[in-house]
Amino acid sequence: MKALVYGGPNKKSLEDRPKPVIAAPTDVIVRVTRTTICGTDLHILKGDVATCQPGRILGHEGVGVVETIGPAITAFKPGDHVLVSCISSCGRCEYCRRAMFSHCITGGWILGNTIDGMQAEFVRIPHADTSLYHIPPGLDEASLVMLSDILPTGFECGVLNGRVQPGSTVVIVGAGPVGLAALLTAKFYTPALIIMVDRDKNRLKISKRLGADITVNNSGGKAAEAIMPVTGGRGADTVIEAVGIPATFSLCQDVVAPGGIIANVGVHGLKVDLHLERLWMQNISITTRLVDTVSTPLLIKTVQSGKISPAVLITHHFKLDQMIEAYDTFASAATTKALKVVIEM
Amino acid sequence: MKALVYGGPNKKSLEDRPKPVIAAPTDVIVRVTRTTICGTDLHILKGDVATCQPGRILGHEGVGVVETIGPAITAFKPGDHVLVSCISSCGRCEYCRRAMFSHCITGGWILGNTIDGMQAEFVRIPHADTSLYHIPPGLDEASLVMLSDILPTGFECGVLNGRVQPGSTVVIVGAGPVGLAALLTAKFYTPALIIMVDRDKNRLKISKRLGADITVNNSGGKAAEAIMPVTGGRGADTVIEAVGIPATFSLCQDVVAPGGIIANVGVHGLKVDLHLERLWMQNISITTRLVDTVSTPLLIKTVQSGKISPAVLITHHFKLDQMIEAYDTFASAATTKALKVVIEM
Amino acid sequence: MKALVYGGPNKKSLEDRPKPVIAAPTDVIVRVTRTTICGTDLHILKGDVATCQPGRILGHEGVGVVETIGPAITAFKPGDHVLVSCISSCGRCEYCRRAMFSHCITGGWILGNTIDGMQAEFVRIPHADTSLYHIPPGLDEASLVMLSDILPTGFECGVLNGRVQPGSTVVIVGAGPVGLAALLTAKFYTPALIIMVDRDKNRLKISKRLGADITVNNSGGKAAEAIMPVTGGRGADTVIEAVGIPATFSLCQDVVAPGGIIANVGVHGLKVDLHLERLWMQNISITTRLVDTVSTPLLIKTVQSGKISPAVLITHHFKLDQMIEAYDTFASAATTKALKVVIEM
Amino acid sequence: MKALVYGGPNKKSLEDRPKPVIAAPTDVIVRVTRTTICGTDLHILKGDVATCQPGRILGHEGVGVVETIGPAITAFKPGDHVLVSCISSCGRCEYCRRAMFSHCITGGWILGNTIDGMQAEFVRIPHADTSLYHIPPGLDEASLVMLSDILPTGFECGVLNGRVQPGSTVVIVGAGPVGLAALLTAKFYTPALIIMVDRDKNRLKISKRLGADITVNNSGGKAAEAIMPVTGGRGADTVIEAVGIPATFSLCQDVVAPGGIIANVGVHGLKVDLHLERLWMQNISITTRLVDTVSTPLLIKTVQSGKISPAVLITHHFKLDQMIEAYDTFASAATTKALKVVIEM
Repeated sequence: MKALVYGGPNKKSLEDRPKPVIAAPTDVIVRVTRTTICGTDLHILKGDVATCQPGRILGHEGVGVVETIGPAITAFKPGDHVLVSCISSCGRCEYCRRAMFSHCITGGWILGNTIDGMQAEFVRIPHADTSLYHIPPGLDEASLVMLSDILPTGFECGVLNGRVQPGSTVVIVGAGPVGLAALLTAKFYTPALIIMVDRDKNRLKISKRLGADITVNNSGGKAAEAIMPVTGGRGADTVIEAVGIPATFSLCQDVVAPGGIIANVGVHGLKVDLHLERLWMQNISITTRLVDTVSTPLLIKTVQSGKISPAVLITHHFKLDQMIEAYDTFASAATTKALKVVIEM
Repeated sequence: MKALVYGGPNKKSLEDRPKPVIAAPTDVIVRVTRTTICGTDLHILKGDVATCQPGRILGHEGVGVVETIGPAITAFKPGDHVLVSCISSCGRCEYCRRAMFSHCITGGWILGNTIDGMQAEFVRIPHADTSLYHIPPGLDEASLVMLSDILPTGFECGVLNGRVQPGSTVVIVGAGPVGLAALLTAKFYTPALIIMVDRDKNRLKISKRLGADITVNNSGGKAAEAIMPVTGGRGADTVIEAVGIPATFSLCQDVVAPGGIIANVGVHGLKVDLHLERLWMQNISITTRLVDTVSTPLLIKTVQSGKISPAVLITHHFKLDQMIEAYDTFASAATTKALKVVIEM
Repeated sequence: MKALVYGGPNKKSLEDRPKPVIAAPTDVIVRVTRTTICGTDLHILKGDVATCQPGRILGHEGVGVVETIGPAITAFKPGDHVLVSCISSCGRCEYCRRAMFSHCITGGWILGNTIDGMQAEFVRIPHADTSLYHIPPGLDEASLVMLSDILPTGFECGVLNGRVQPGSTVVIVGAGPVGLAALLTAKFYTPALIIMVDRDKNRLKISKRLGADITVNNSGGKAAEAIMPVTGGRGADTVIEAVGIPATFSLCQDVVAPGGIIANVGVHGLKVDLHLERLWMQNISITTRLVDTVSTPLLIKTVQSGKISPAVLITHHFKLDQMIEAYDTFASAATTKALKVVIEM
Repeated sequence: MKALVYGGPNKKSLEDRPKPVIAAPTDVIVRVTRTTICGTDLHILKGDVATCQPGRILGHEGVGVVETIGPAITAFKPGDHVLVSCISSCGRCEYCRRAMFSHCITGGWILGNTIDGMQAEFVRIPHADTSLYHIPPGLDEASLVMLSDILPTGFECGVLNGRVQPGSTVVIVGAGPVGLAALLTAKFYTPALIIMVDRDKNRLKISKRLGADITVNNSGGKAAEAIMPVTGGRGADTVIEAVGIPATFSLCQDVVAPGGIIANVGVHGLKVDLHLERLWMQNISITTRLVDTVSTPLLIKTVQSGKISPAVLITHHFKLDQMIEAYDTFASAATTKALKVVIEM
C-alpha cells in the first residue's frame, strides 16, 4: 500500500509499504478513506519529536472503514464506518479509568508516532474497541476528520479546561487550526465576548467569519493594550494559549482577570517565565493537557445535530498520491492560506 | 401614588397609596418605570399564598430609576437606572454567603408578598445594595423586566440545576413563560436536542420559533411515547419540570435517562409520587430551587452582548392605569395568547 | 465444586456444580477464597428479584486467586490475588466511558443475578480486565471482601452523592451494613456531626463505636424531633437513606436542610411520597444510584494506608460447607447481631 | 492606646496611638483580646510590601470583643465575642458576589496594610457585618486566632485549590505555620499519604507529630529523589507550595503526577521558571490564591466539633507590652522554634 513515511529530519517520502495485519486480539485494521496533516507532523519532520523514529508512517487523524477485526473486538465489524481517535486508550489502566486517555499506559498518542499512522491506505488501530467511534449514517466524513484531534484538542484543552461560561470573556491567542477549533467550540457556551489574537491578517479575517467578536493583530506586540480596555480593565475570564512559545504565554499572563484561567493548548519546546511575583495573589489557574478525546461522543452529537460544522476549517483537498504537495501546502500556510487539508484515498 | 392592591381571594384593585419612604439605612426608593405580572401573582389572587395578606401591593419584577437612597447605600445614587431582583438578599447571612439568596434570613421572596411590591409608581427595596443591578446604557429596559424573575428562574432552577451540556438531550415540560425562559437559556449550552412539551398549540408554535428542536403536544397524555424514540430509547439527560402538578412530574420520571436529572421549576401545591421502586438504581438526581438570582450579572452580560433577546417573551404592553385589563389578559392566556405583559408607568 | 444455589422463593441449597470455564476472551476464572452474603441475596430468596432465576449460584462479593485467563486478558495472570467487584463493566460502552459502570450495557450487576456468582469454589468473571482489582501484598483479604459492594455502595451512593464536607451535618437513616459503610466513609470528609438513626439498639451501639457523634432510636417514629434541635433547627446538609421503605424516605424529607441533599442508598420496592408542595422551594437535591464501583481503587488505597479498617463490619466467620448456617445467621440479624458474615473456602 | 507601628524598613515601635472611631456606617470598633504576628508582617518590615506605609499599625489576625457599632450594623452588638478575618469584604461588589472576597473592590487584605491593624488595643473593622464572625460560647479564643488567616490560607489556597481527596497523595513543600495549617486541614479529606518537605529538623519533627506520614529534609536539595519512589514513580496528586521562592516552586514541578495540581500558597517576590516544555502534556493545573476566608464558618464548625485543634500551632505567648520581644522570637524561628506566637492584651 502507499504510505507517507518519515525519513529523518526534513525527509519524507510516499512509499510502498506492506499492508498492516492484526497483531493483538484487540486490534482492528481500518481502510483509511480520509486523513489530514497536523502541525505536530511538521514538528516531527523538523526532528523535534524524539519518540518518532525514521521509517514511521505518519498521521494520527482520519476516518475509514473497518477491514478486519481481532478476536476480542466486540463493538465493531468489517464494513463499519469509523472515526479514528488520535489517542489510543485501553479503557482499563489507572489513567483510562480516570478518563485521562492521553496517559493510557499502553496507548496515548502513539499513532504516527511510535506505531505506524493514518497517512496510508490502511492502518492498524490497537485497543480499537475503545479508540474508534461509529460514524452515524449521513454525516459528512471529511468534516469528521476534524474530530480525530483538532476539535477535541481545542475543546478539551482550551474550552473545557478554560471553563468558558455564558456571559464570560474569552481570549484565544493563536488563530491556527487548533485556535479556531477552540473558537468554534467556545461558542457552545455562549460567552459574551471572544477575542482572537494572531499576527496573520487572513486568519483573523477567518476568525471573524467563524464568530469572533473582536480580532486583535499582535504584529506589533501590543495585543494586551488592545484587549484590556474591552474587558473593562479586568482582563479575560478564560485565556486560551494556542501557539506554544514564551511570548504568547507571557501575553496570556498579561490579560487574565483575577479569578481567571489560562488554558494552555500550545505545544511548547521551551520553558517560560511565570510571573508569580504578581500572579500569586490573583486567584488564577493555569492548566495543561494533552487531549484525552473524552469528548468525542459529545462532539459527534453536536455535528450530527447540526450545531457545529467543522468542515469550515477545511481549505484544501488532495488525493493520497498528492501527499507531498499536501504537506507543502500545509507547511506554507502564510502564503497558501491553508488551515486543514483533507487527503482522500 | 397608584398601586395594584391585593384585597383577599379573587379581589384586586388599582388604588391610591402613599409613596413609600426609606425605613432602614440599606433601603432605596425606586421610581418604577416598567413592571409585569407573574403566574405567582395569580396564585396569590386565588388565595394560595398564605404569606401574602390583603392590603399588599403586588409585583416582584421590574425596572426603574433610583429616587432616594438610605444612608448605608454605597453602590447606587439617585437617577441610576436599575433592575430590581425578585429576591432581596442581605449579602451577609449564612445563606447569602453560600449564594442561596432565596433563603436570605431577612430577605428572599418578600417583594409583593410580605412587603409592598412593584406594581406601583414607587417601591421600597430593602437590602438594596445587594438586590438591585445597574442597567448598562443602551439596553432595552422592557427586555430587562424579564431578568427580574423569569429568566433567572428558568436558567438557575432549570438549566443550571439540570446541568444542560453541549450535545445533551433536554426535555422541557411546560411552555409557559418560565418554560420558554428555560428554553432560551438552555440554548446557551448548545444541547443537541431540546424537546418542548405542552398542551397549548400556540405555545408549542412559539417554542419552535424560539429554538425548540421538537415539540410534543401532551393533550392526549402520551408525551412519553413520543419522546422516548427520539432519544434512542434512553430518555433525556435533562428534564425540566415547569408546570407544577403531579401529572407533569410523573411524565418527567418516565422520560429521564439513567444518569439524568429532573430539575423542578414548577410551584407545586400537592405532594407527588416518586417511583423509587424503579428509580433507586437509575443514578438520577432530582433538584428543587427557588431562584437565587445569582445569575443576574451573567444574564445582563448575555443580553448586553446580544446573545439573547428576552423581549421575545413579551406579547402585550399596558399602562399602569390599565392594570386590571393587564391582569385579565395575562390570566386568560389560552385565549389571549399572552406570555409576558409589560406595564409601563 | 460446591455452590450455594437459589432454588426459587424461599429455597436454597448447597449443591455440587460443574466448575466454570472461560466462555469469552475477556473472561477470567477465579478460585474464590472468601465471599459473603448481601441483603440483596435475602431479597432474591424472597422472590423479589425477577431477573434472578432458580438454578442460579448466588453471591456478588468476594476475593480470590486467578485460576485461568481468557486470551484477551492483559492485566491479570494465574496466581494473582484479586478483589472481585460486584459490578461487571466492559470499559467501553457509552455508560462505562462516563464511569457509570452499573449501567454497562453488557455488565452491571450480573454476578449472582443473571450469571452464576461468588458463593462457590470458583466463579467466571466476565470483562475481567475491568472488573477485577489487584490486592496489594500484605492486606487482610477478609477486610477486602467489604470492598466488593458494601463500602463502595455506602461511599458512592451515600457519601459522594451526598457531598459530605468538612464541617457539615450528616444524618444516616439505617445502621445496617451499608449504613455503617456510609458512616465509615463519611468520616473521610470530617463532617462536624454524624447522626445515625435506627430501631435496633445494638446497631446504634455499634454506630457509636464506629464514630457516630449522636445516635437516635426511631422505634417511636419521632427521630425528626430528636434530630432538628441538634442541627440548630435547620436540618442536615446530607441525609443518607439506607433502609429502602416509604417511612424512612419520609423521615429524610423531614430533616433535610435548605440547600441539602437526600442521597438514597436503600433498595425500594414501593413508590414513595415526595412532598414537593413544601420542598419545591427548598433548593434540595435527591439522588439515586446503583453503585458503580468507580471508587474501588481509592478505597483500596485508604485500606492500604490504614485510614480505614472495614473488618470492623465483620461479625461472623463460616466455612463454605456452613453456608446454610451462614445465611440463617445473617437473616436473623436482630437476634444474632450479625452485620457481615465472611465465608472462607 | 498601645499599638505596634511600622516605621519604615526595619523599624517598628510600640507607641501610644488614639483609639479608633467609627468612620462609616458599616464599621465596628473591636477591643482586641488576642492577636498574632504573620510572616507577612516580617515582609512589611523588610520594606517588601509597597502598599504598607510608615505609620501603619500592623496586624491582620486576632479575636476580640465588639466595643461600638456603626449605624448600619445588624449582625453584631457591643459585647459580642468576635473573630476578625484578615480579609475585609463588602459582600456586594462583583468579586464578593463570586465569593472572591480577597479581591473585594473596597476591601481585601487592607487590615495592617492600607488601614490600621490588630496589633493594638482597639481596631476599626470596615464592612464589619461581612468581615467578623461570632465566636461560639466555650471555644478557646487563642485557638481561634489561627482562623483569622493561617488556617483558611492553608485550607483554601492549599487544600481546596489542591483538591485533596480520600486516598490521594499530597506533598507539602514548607513546614512553616501555613504549611502546617495545610497539613492539618488536608487531613480533613483522609489522603492516603502526606509528605512534608522542609530544611528545618524541628519543623519536620512537628510535622510528623501533627500527622505527616513521611517527612523529607531538603537540605541537600534532593527531595524529589526521596519523594518519587514513595509515590510509585508517578508523583503526587496534590503538591502544595508553601514557601514562595523559585527553588521550591521548581521542586513542585518535579514531583507533580500527571493529572495533578500544584497549589501555590507561598508569597513570591520573583518570577519563576515554568517548564511547559515537559508539562504542556501532563494534564496538570497550577493555582494561585490570596485567601478569601470563605471557609471561615466551616473552619469554626470543625473547631467547635473538636475535629481540629489549631492551638497545636501556638508555641509562644506574650503580652502586648512584650510585642517587640514577640517579633524577635517569631523572626528567629530557626533558633526559637517559634511557629505562631499569641499576644494577649
